[in-house]
Amino acid sequence: MKQQETTSKLKIIPLGGLEQIGMNITAFEYEDSIIVVDCGLSFPEDDMYGIDLVIPDVTYLKENIDRVKGFFITHGHEDHIGAIPYVLKDINVPIYATKLTIGIIDNKLKEHNMLNTVKRKVVKYGQHINLGCFRVEFIKTNHSIQDAAALAIYSPAGIVVHTGDFKVDYTPVFGDAIDLQRFGEIGKKGVLALMCDSTNAERAGFTMSEKSVGKTINQIFEDHASSRIIIATFASNVDRVQQIINAAYKNGRKVVVEGRSMVNIIGTASELGYISIPENTLIDIEALKNYPDEQTVIITTGSQGESMAALSRMASGVHRKISIKPNDTIVLSSNPIPGNEKAVSNIINELSMKGANVIFQDVHVSGHACQEEIKLIYSLLHPKYAIPVHGEYRHLMAQARIAESLGMDKENIFILSSGDVLELDSESAAVKGRVTTGAVMVDGLGVGDVGNIVLRDRQHLAEDGIIIVVMTLEAGSGMVLAGPDIVSRGFVYVRGSESLMEEAKHVLDEKMQQCMDRNITDWSKIKAEVKDALGDFVWKETKRRPMIMPIIMEV
Amino acid sequence: MKQQETTSKLKIIPLGGLEQIGMNITAFEYEDSIIVVDCGLSFPEDDMYGIDLVIPDVTYLKENIDRVKGFFITHGHEDHIGAIPYVLKDINVPIYATKLTIGIIDNKLKEHNMLNTVKRKVVKYGQHINLGCFRVEFIKTNHSIQDAAALAIYSPAGIVVHTGDFKVDYTPVFGDAIDLQRFGEIGKKGVLALMCDSTNAERAGFTMSEKSVGKTINQIFEDHASSRIIIATFASNVDRVQQIINAAYKNGRKVVVEGRSMVNIIGTASELGYISIPENTLIDIEALKNYPDEQTVIITTGSQGESMAALSRMASGVHRKISIKPNDTIVLSSNPIPGNEKAVSNIINELSMKGANVIFQDVHVSGHACQEEIKLIYSLLHPKYAIPVHGEYRHLMAQARIAESLGMDKENIFILSSGDVLELDSESAAVKGRVTTGAVMVDGLGVGDVGNIVLRDRQHLAEDGIIIVVMTLEAGSGMVLAGPDIVSRGFVYVRGSESLMEEAKHVLDEKMQQCMDRNITDWSKIKAEVKDALGDFVWKETKRRPMIMPIIMEV
Repeated sequence: MKQQETTSKLKIIPLGGLEQIGMNITAFEYEDSIIVVDCGLSFPEDDMYGIDLVIPDVTYLKENIDRVKGFFITHGHEDHIGAIPYVLKDINVPIYATKLTIGIIDNKLKEHNMLNTVKRKVVKYGQHINLGCFRVEFIKTNHSIQDAAALAIYSPAGIVVHTGDFKVDYTPVFGDAIDLQRFGEIGKKGVLALMCDSTNAERAGFTMSEKSVGKTINQIFEDHASSRIIIATFASNVDRVQQIINAAYKNGRKVVVEGRSMVNIIGTASELGYISIPENTLIDIEALKNYPDEQTVIITTGSQGESMAALSRMASGVHRKISIKPNDTIVLSSNPIPGNEKAVSNIINELSMKGANVIFQDVHVSGHACQEEIKLIYSLLHPKYAIPVHGEYRHLMAQARIAESLGMDKENIFILSSGDVLELDSESAAVKGRVTTGAVMVDGLGVGDVGNIVLRDRQHLAEDGIIIVVMTLEAGSGMVLAGPDIVSRGFVYVRGSESLMEEAKHVLDEKMQQCMDRNITDWSKIKAEVKDALGDFVWKETKRRPMIMPIIMEV
Repeated sequence: MKQQETTSKLKIIPLGGLEQIGMNITAFEYEDSIIVVDCGLSFPEDDMYGIDLVIPDVTYLKENIDRVKGFFITHGHEDHIGAIPYVLKDINVPIYATKLTIGIIDNKLKEHNMLNTVKRKVVKYGQHINLGCFRVEFIKTNHSIQDAAALAIYSPAGIVVHTGDFKVDYTPVFGDAIDLQRFGEIGKKGVLALMCDSTNAERAGFTMSEKSVGKTINQIFEDHASSRIIIATFASNVDRVQQIINAAYKNGRKVVVEGRSMVNIIGTASELGYISIPENTLIDIEALKNYPDEQTVIITTGSQGESMAALSRMASGVHRKISIKPNDTIVLSSNPIPGNEKAVSNIINELSMKGANVIFQDVHVSGHACQEEIKLIYSLLHPKYAIPVHGEYRHLMAQARIAESLGMDKENIFILSSGDVLELDSESAAVKGRVTTGAVMVDGLGVGDVGNIVLRDRQHLAEDGIIIVVMTLEAGSGMVLAGPDIVSRGFVYVRGSESLMEEAKHVLDEKMQQCMDRNITDWSKIKAEVKDALGDFVWKETKRRPMIMPIIMEV
């Protein structure tokens, strides 16, 4: 009996979350059942030198693999699906998501040769999936990618609603508006906890409809009727692409889609019926030359200034097919994601220098709910507990303040850290313990093999370079047979440093003489002496601290 | 006669400018006279690994040192004065600036032990300085630092007005509003060229008065009467500090000033009479403990999230004197400078996690003119030529569009690149040739000794680390006596990579055997073979490309 009491609460455990922004992955646990919502990856922070991707440490799921029933994915953005190929290698359970989301996941699994090993189930809005103690309902929402869903998670302890990333769009470009009626209906049943998107919780008001961007784009087409138009936006924003295509069609322009991820997603969206392209509108990039500039538009990736994306390659003149011309009108239909401001500014400068007219203000709306929308969702659901999700700590706190302003008790609002185990039922909620989580860094083919020491070394190398000291000693006597020789990389050597290196060699020669005089033969001792002597000398002369690496060989 | 004709134009030569944002330094040349406006430094771009500062390459000034008459400094910000200690070492001519600007320059020269070697002359608004063919008048403007000046540069070819960084503040906190009457008067005389601040040329409207921030700050003090207040802002914005002190005094709080640069500038401003601090308001940081929290305010540096500044040290709990408490109200009285967004966001998160209430929206106004102010200056001066300055290329272009919208001919607007020589007089203007300019990187004590190869190496090291292969060969025979041994830094070695390194050693052993079999004894040949073999192996196994560095010794 006692055991049952302790396990009869619902546990909510963020496994990526906070510390690693973007790694959305949350476990829901009740007795013998665990389900997981989302499975995202994150991009490396500035100090993660050489790292390609960051994925969540799912040790907890691996340790409880027998109880894990399935993954529920809210939508097809990288920070919600990106870690699937890595995580599902170890935890192979079915994935449930809406049609387009599964389509995008399929592309990803194909790249990793996992299409035949992972089960995917397409779910419709309103459909309920029973897995173990849980029942999960998919509810229509709006976001900057189609087919986004909120999840109502029915557990014996009560209903948890997870909004996923969402906004309220009363006039969406494709499909229906968010199913506010269903939110209201579930609210009436009584909601134990709400996990709501916090991204824009600091912004007052309401996020504009995606359709408003369509009007702006159409106006740009009309205002720039005599020039070629190049529009960069997020590959996954199919509605945006649809609106660009509509404007192109209306203005009698042919459309080229450029950039690998853009081509992939438009292909998938087109196959699955999420975009409708009028006949004879799309043309191949090779056919561009057959049309006058003012009858063409190029839709491309790279609106965030990503250095390898198509727009950057055009801007720096290395794109194989398209070069920027002085009369081009170039539209960045996106806002910089925090951290990308400088890269975006650089590309605006580069394009401007080539004489293009760059339009980058107000050709975008967010895909996330602002304060009034968040209040709307709280008011429809009236949850007992609030667990703000998706956003940095400052954004979660901003949502917490919104919840308080709506009359919620401070003690019923939980800002969870990655690994926190929140135990809750209708009586109470509290963080009880922690599980192992963390960031697993992916570098090339290596998953998790780059640790903090390697990163620290990379940072040291990046800032001050390396000086290598090699010498060959005679076995037995410890006599110096060759060296010490000095080689450096990433350290000064342009002006005046040849003499610096010669002086350094004198310092080392002296030091080795001392070592021999004092009969020091222990290699680690010799290395330490060499390191100290050279380090001090270099610091005194240059105020720099390169990594110093003595290597001893013996013959 | 011919020679005189070719030299009787005014030459304007930006020596820092465009490519290196922030390095404001422009030479004005007429026959035997050269004067220089500003002498700024720039901070390193993300890919300038390990670089502390960037200063302009003034080769052109050095080569014409006999003609250089003096430096005119518009105001005391780093991007206008920061390179003085480096440049004036080689080109020791007098510096002319307003009182506070000279005070700040003096601090800088003191640090470099140059106070006795460089001549400084304090200039008043309205004063004219005659140097060679030039006469330079200082005109009162407003900016985010006091004592900012525009310069009217009278040359035989006509008058050039350089605005410096400026805004129009009708109700400044200290001193007078910008001297619009004088701008009008000079405009009536006829202005050859206008060099106007472009920083905010993309922003519509008018920049708000600095006084509006004072109101906001006072409101924050009233709204948070029961908590300690910590306000971070730019050290050099003395008017902002004045307004914080005023609010503190009005609300009965004691003030602590913290952060080295803040203490320095407030000291200088106070000595020179640019800030007035009521008696018994400033207290020492040690005295904080004698007052209840709600009777104190701490003014500090670090509003840009700079990792070594006082606020960052408080946020991460390593400040020796001040630790953040849950009830603290922390105000960031600044907006993130482009490129600092992430650092600012990180510090907001850190402070929020410590329970502090962080206020960061709308407690700042810019120090730069928006579109309507730029139009005002153009309309007062009616220049023949426009040379937008100060800003990235996109901002210069935005000002060019403003000038066009005011009716200026496109051909009379010049976007100059660093090193361009613009020759102009009342008849014509054109870029004629270029002079040597560029960025000189400062790393530790080294000025200019870090070049592109070093930077490229540092980047390579940062991304993939280094593998060093050492071996000792027998002189003459070329037999391998010891090694090849492999050592790595910044490269994988945590999991499974020991066996990788063993396999790599096999690869190298085989390669060396091949070399010996083929009688290859040329070291550069052996090194190339080792590099290729190991590089291919590592790429195949890990999809990484560490720097590979073979070192051969001989005994």
